[in-house]
Amino acid sequence: MRTTLEGTGRTVLLSSEAPFVVIGERVNPSGKRGLAESLRRGDMSLVRQEALAQTKAGAHVIDVNVTAEGVDEETILPLAVQAVAEAVDAPICVDTADVRALAEALVVCPGKPLVNSVTGEASSLHAVLPLVKQRGCAVIGLCMDEDGIPGDASKRLEIAQKIVQAAQELGISKDNVVIDPLATTIGADSKAGLGTLLAIRSISEKLAVNTTMGGSNISFGLPERSLINRSFLPMVIAAGLTSAIVDPLDEEIRRAIAACDLLLGHDEFAEEFLQRFRGGW
Amino acid sequence: MRTTLEGTGRTVLLSSEAPFVVIGERVNPSGKRGLAESLRRGDMSLVRQEALAQTKAGAHVIDVNVTAEGVDEETILPLAVQAVAEAVDAPICVDTADVRALAEALVVCPGKPLVNSVTGEASSLHAVLPLVKQRGCAVIGLCMDEDGIPGDASKRLEIAQKIVQAAQELGISKDNVVIDPLATTIGADSKAGLGTLLAIRSISEKLAVNTTMGGSNISFGLPERSLINRSFLPMVIAAGLTSAIVDPLDEEIRRAIAACDLLLGHDEFAEEFLQRFRGGW
Repeated sequence: MRTTLEGTGRTVLLSSEAPFVVIGERVNPSGKRGLAESLRRGDMSLVRQEALAQTKAGAHVIDVNVTAEGVDEETILPLAVQAVAEAVDAPICVDTADVRALAEALVVCPGKPLVNSVTGEASSLHAVLPLVKQRGCAVIGLCMDEDGIPGDASKRLEIAQKIVQAAQELGISKDNVVIDPLATTIGADSKAGLGTLLAIRSISEKLAVNTTMGGSNISFGLPERSLINRSFLPMVIAAGLTSAIVDPLDEEIRRAIAACDLLLGHDEFAEEFLQRFRGGW
Repeated sequence: MRTTLEGTGRTVLLSSEAPFVVIGERVNPSGKRGLAESLRRGDMSLVRQEALAQTKAGAHVIDVNVTAEGVDEETILPLAVQAVAEAVDAPICVDTADVRALAEALVVCPGKPLVNSVTGEASSLHAVLPLVKQRGCAVIGLCMDEDGIPGDASKRLEIAQKIVQAAQELGISKDNVVIDPLATTIGADSKAGLGTLLAIRSISEKLAVNTTMGGSNISFGLPERSLINRSFLPMVIAAGLTSAIVDPLDEEIRRAIAACDLLLGHDEFAEEFLQRFRGGW
């Protein structure tokens, strides 16, 4: 499993043999009133700021999402993608449920982006995968279908297989599909962490594709979310997870990921770990 | 895999289906000058204090080690074991390389203790296992033999198999052998974490025995030891580790273990996690 993504000046590799890939989540107006307002005005200054701050903090890929009330995604998403591409040299993760906005954004996005996302629903597969094939990029496949997010790992593996197969039928290689098993919160179901862990393990081992997930869904609704998130990351990274969509400005997350790379033998002579330690993280 | 240990008033279960078992490491004079001096005088007050403090902090089992210069283990180890058994109701882990001291301590130790430890060396197997059989207790088997600690996981699995087989030949059930793969530091070898992780996974899956390890060896010689230790614990617990010998007075370790139990579905309704959170850990 080797997925490469390209920005204007940087190639990022997702692989179980390489350091963990951090996809910065902050260019997203959800819960950020200031960013939502500036997007409605078509002002990209905050988008540029967030992209820069995240790459400085060590993000390898920048997720770009502009979904908010009053924002015309078809117009604004391409502008935001261009703004990020001008601000930083990292690959972009184009994040939208609007297929037309996705198509427009992929036209202006440089390099080889990651599309976020396709699901196992027939309508999603038919709408999104042809755009991915045409653009020659990679795509995140979410383990959900017409029946929602399944609780057990084997059903999530089935959906992942279905997405990979649909991609391959269109000529998209397995290396260009990154599966997100969709972590749900243990606040609602105490077996949810185990389900996600087993899904990542089986998808990594049996399907041999790269994987990603949101780094904080697992703790939703509970206290000590940072503790829970930074304890779950080592579990899932050791089980095969090769990237995550997280907030790279959260120092605890950065520290946990640096420790994971070190512990899994992806940081020879602890070079990166010691450099971050000496720089005060 | 179900290993039960018994104290004067408490039975502790090691199992992949049960919460993680904390073996408190603090009754050990290594690096503790005050404790070493009081042991030389035969004064057990510090031993009692450390045992009490650890069970209050959530330790399930108390490791008892009196190895220090000038301490006569044959006399002092039984006294220390008795002192701990009087102070707390938890099972005891009798920790010595001195077989005579072990034999004396097992005579006075109540309940069903855990012997720490036997190795894969013929001399160790012949000396320690008969005592374990006679006493009807459990034993920690260290993955090392005449050639030292092997680097690769498959050789450690072989040594574990050899120890389990030697135990079974004497009539000690597999459930009464707890394997310690022996974590070595990533400070000396950047693949050491991965080696230990794979050893735990294969010993848990293929040999189906309980496992334990020291919680801090992995980070020896590196800065940010607490960060490294609390990132390694979720990895190895998710890979099958069912107990560890740690300092339960280290709040970060307590928090990490509580998060692991929660994430692996061993804490229904987050009851224990929320109770600890509300109590300020």
